[in-house]
Amino acid sequence: MENLPRTLTVDLGERSYPIFIGPGILNSPDQYIFPYLKGKDIMVVSNETVAPLYLDRLMNGLRDHYNTEAVVLPDGEQYKTLESVNLIFDALLANKFGRDATLVALGGGVVGDMTGFAAACYQRGIDFLQIPTTLLSQVDSSVGGKTGVNHPLGKNMIGAFHQPRAVLIDIATLSTLEMRHYRAGLAEVIKYGLIEDCEFFVALQENIDDLLRLEQDVLVDAIETSCRIKAEIVADDERESGRRAILNLGHTFGHAIETATGYSEWLHGEAIACGMVMAADLSERLGWLARDEVDEIRALFQKVGLPTAPPSSMTREGFIDLMSHDKKVVSGQLRLVLLKTIGQAIVSSEYDQDCLDKTLDAFCKPLD
Amino acid sequence: MENLPRTLTVDLGERSYPIFIGPGILNSPDQYIFPYLKGKDIMVVSNETVAPLYLDRLMNGLRDHYNTEAVVLPDGEQYKTLESVNLIFDALLANKFGRDATLVALGGGVVGDMTGFAAACYQRGIDFLQIPTTLLSQVDSSVGGKTGVNHPLGKNMIGAFHQPRAVLIDIATLSTLEMRHYRAGLAEVIKYGLIEDCEFFVALQENIDDLLRLEQDVLVDAIETSCRIKAEIVADDERESGRRAILNLGHTFGHAIETATGYSEWLHGEAIACGMVMAADLSERLGWLARDEVDEIRALFQKVGLPTAPPSSMTREGFIDLMSHDKKVVSGQLRLVLLKTIGQAIVSSEYDQDCLDKTLDAFCKPLD
Repeated sequence: MENLPRTLTVDLGERSYPIFIGPGILNSPDQYIFPYLKGKDIMVVSNETVAPLYLDRLMNGLRDHYNTEAVVLPDGEQYKTLESVNLIFDALLANKFGRDATLVALGGGVVGDMTGFAAACYQRGIDFLQIPTTLLSQVDSSVGGKTGVNHPLGKNMIGAFHQPRAVLIDIATLSTLEMRHYRAGLAEVIKYGLIEDCEFFVALQENIDDLLRLEQDVLVDAIETSCRIKAEIVADDERESGRRAILNLGHTFGHAIETATGYSEWLHGEAIACGMVMAADLSERLGWLARDEVDEIRALFQKVGLPTAPPSSMTREGFIDLMSHDKKVVSGQLRLVLLKTIGQAIVSSEYDQDCLDKTLDAFCKPLD
Repeated sequence: MENLPRTLTVDLGERSYPIFIGPGILNSPDQYIFPYLKGKDIMVVSNETVAPLYLDRLMNGLRDHYNTEAVVLPDGEQYKTLESVNLIFDALLANKFGRDATLVALGGGVVGDMTGFAAACYQRGIDFLQIPTTLLSQVDSSVGGKTGVNHPLGKNMIGAFHQPRAVLIDIATLSTLEMRHYRAGLAEVIKYGLIEDCEFFVALQENIDDLLRLEQDVLVDAIETSCRIKAEIVADDERESGRRAILNLGHTFGHAIETATGYSEWLHGEAIACGMVMAADLSERLGWLARDEVDEIRALFQKVGLPTAPPSSMTREGFIDLMSHDKKVVSGQLRLVLLKTIGQAIVSSEYDQDCLDKTLDAFCKPLD
C-alpha cells in the first residue's frame, strides 16, 4: 500500500502535533520518536498485557540514545485510578526525572489517559507521546489531550487537558488485539460517521466485513478518517466549550452503564455502542431521526457484534441517577448529544423529558 | 486608614483576576465573592484550625444565595497529599457538583494549593477563589496559580497551573494567626525585597518592629507591595519558563530542609528563611553579594525570629541528595536562584560547584 505512513496534524498553534498512521512505526523510533523528545530521560508507561508484546522492542530502540525506564501497570479500566497514576509519579521521582523528561504511553486508552494525566501533573506539566495499541485509543483517546482517571462515583471525573507531542499509530499492533476489543473500537469509528460524516457511515456499512477482517487498506482509511474528524473538532474547540461535546455521542448513557457495572464487565466501546443506539432512539422520539435510520444504526452495531441494549439489571431510575453525575450536567440540567440526522450531531439540554423517559423505558425492560 | 480595600490586578489576558487587600472583606461576600461565581454551587474547603474561626461566617454570607457545602481537611503540610485532594473530589461528587461549581479555599497555603489543584483536575477544570488566612499564603501561594501536593520524595511534585478567579486578603484574619506562623510569613515578604526591590528591603528593615506588632498601615503596605511584585512577575512569566523562577529564592535549600524533616517540624517560611541565608552566602562566595549584605540579610531574619541555620542533623550529602529532586533540575544540572545584589536575583546553573560545597559545609556543621 502506498503513501504509508499517513500523517495528519492536530492544529493547535504552538501545541500542534502530528499523528502518524501506518504499519511498523514502532520499528523506526529515530524517525517518529526522537524528534519529539526534549531531554534525555524517557519513562515508558505500559500495562501487563501490552508490555510482553511490545515493550522490549520499544525500549531497545530507545536505550542506546536515551536514559529509558519503564512502569508496567495492571491492565483494565478498574485500575484507571489516582493510585495507578501515583505509581507513575513514584517511578519518575525514584529515577529523579526532571521537567525535561518525556512520558511515553504504550497501550490502550487507559494507559494513555493515565500517562497523559501524570504528564499534566508531574512537576506541573511535562511532555508525553501517545503510542496507542488498541483501535479504540487509536481513533479516539490518544488524540485531543483529554487525560484523567475515574472516581468510584463517576468516570473520567478527575483529569486535565494536556496535549501529546506526537501520536504514533502502528496498525501492526492490532494483530495482537483481542477481537472483542477490536470490535469495541469500531464503535468509536462508527461514531465519527454518525456525528459528522454521512458518507463515511455509508462506507462503513459497505466495508464492514473487510474491516472486521482487518483488511489493511480499509483499516488505514477508517483510522485516518476517524482521526481527521477528531483532529478537526479538537482544533476547533480544544477545551470543549462547545462543539467538541458532540464527540460524546452515546457517552452519557454509556458511562451510566460502565458505572453501574463497575467499569469491568462492559468495554467502553460496548457501552457507548449501546449508548449511541439509545441516543438515536431518543433523537427519533424528538422527531429528528427517521425510525429506519435508527434501525440502520442498530443493525451496523449488531453486525459488528456490539451490544445494543443495556444490562438487564439496569432500571430507568438507575440510569437517571447515574447520568446526573455526568460532566455535561450544567446547573442541574443534563445535556445530551443527539442526532439531527446521520452525519449531524447537536448538544442540547432542551429536549422533552418525557421522550427521555420513554427511551429509558424502552431499553430498560425486555421489548418483545 | 483610607483607600481600603486596595485592589491589584494579576494581568493574564482572559485569565486576569483581582486581589483585594483590607480588613473585613469576609463580611461583604456580595461585593467580593458573588461577582466571581459562575453557577449556583459552592464548595468551601478549609482546615480544622481555620474552620472554627471563619467558616460559619463565610457560609452564612453565601448560603442565602448559593448552594453552599464545605469540606474540612486536617491541618498541616503533612496532609498536603493526593489523599486529601481526593476528599475534595469525594465531596464534589457526593453533592453532584458539575462543571459550573466553584471551589473556595479558606485557609493557608496548604488549603489553597490543594483546593486549586482539585479545581484544576475536577472534571478537567472548574473555577476557584482564594481566601488566604495566613500571611504566607496572602503574599505568596494564593497569587499566581501554582497548585499541587507533595510526594514523599519531594515537595510540590504533583500539581498544575490553574489561576483563581479572585484573591480575597482579609487582614483581619491575621489577628488569629499564631505568631510563629506570622513570622514565617514575613520570610516571603522579605524575599520580595531581596529578589526585586532594594527600597522595599530597606523599608522592611526600618519598619520591622511595627510589622511584628501587626500595625495596620505598615502591614497593608507590605502585603500590597509583596502582591504587586508577585503579580508583575507572574504576568510576565505565568508558567515559569524564565523569570518567575526567581520567586524560588531560598526554596531549593528550604525544600531540602522540609523534606528531611518530613514537612512537619519546620514551617515553610522558616525553611526558606534559612534557605535564603544559604543562597546569600553562596552568592557572596561567587563574588556577587558583599559579606555585609549577607550579614544584613541574616540579621533581618534573626530579628523576625526566623532560623538561619539548618537542623543540626542535616549533612552536606543529605542536602545534595534532596536537592537533586528539585524541579529546577534540568538534564541533571541543578539551577539555583542567587543574588547579584539585594534587589536583584538571577537563576543559574553556571555556578562554581566548589562554592556550593563550601556553603553547605559552612551551614552543615557548627560555625562557632
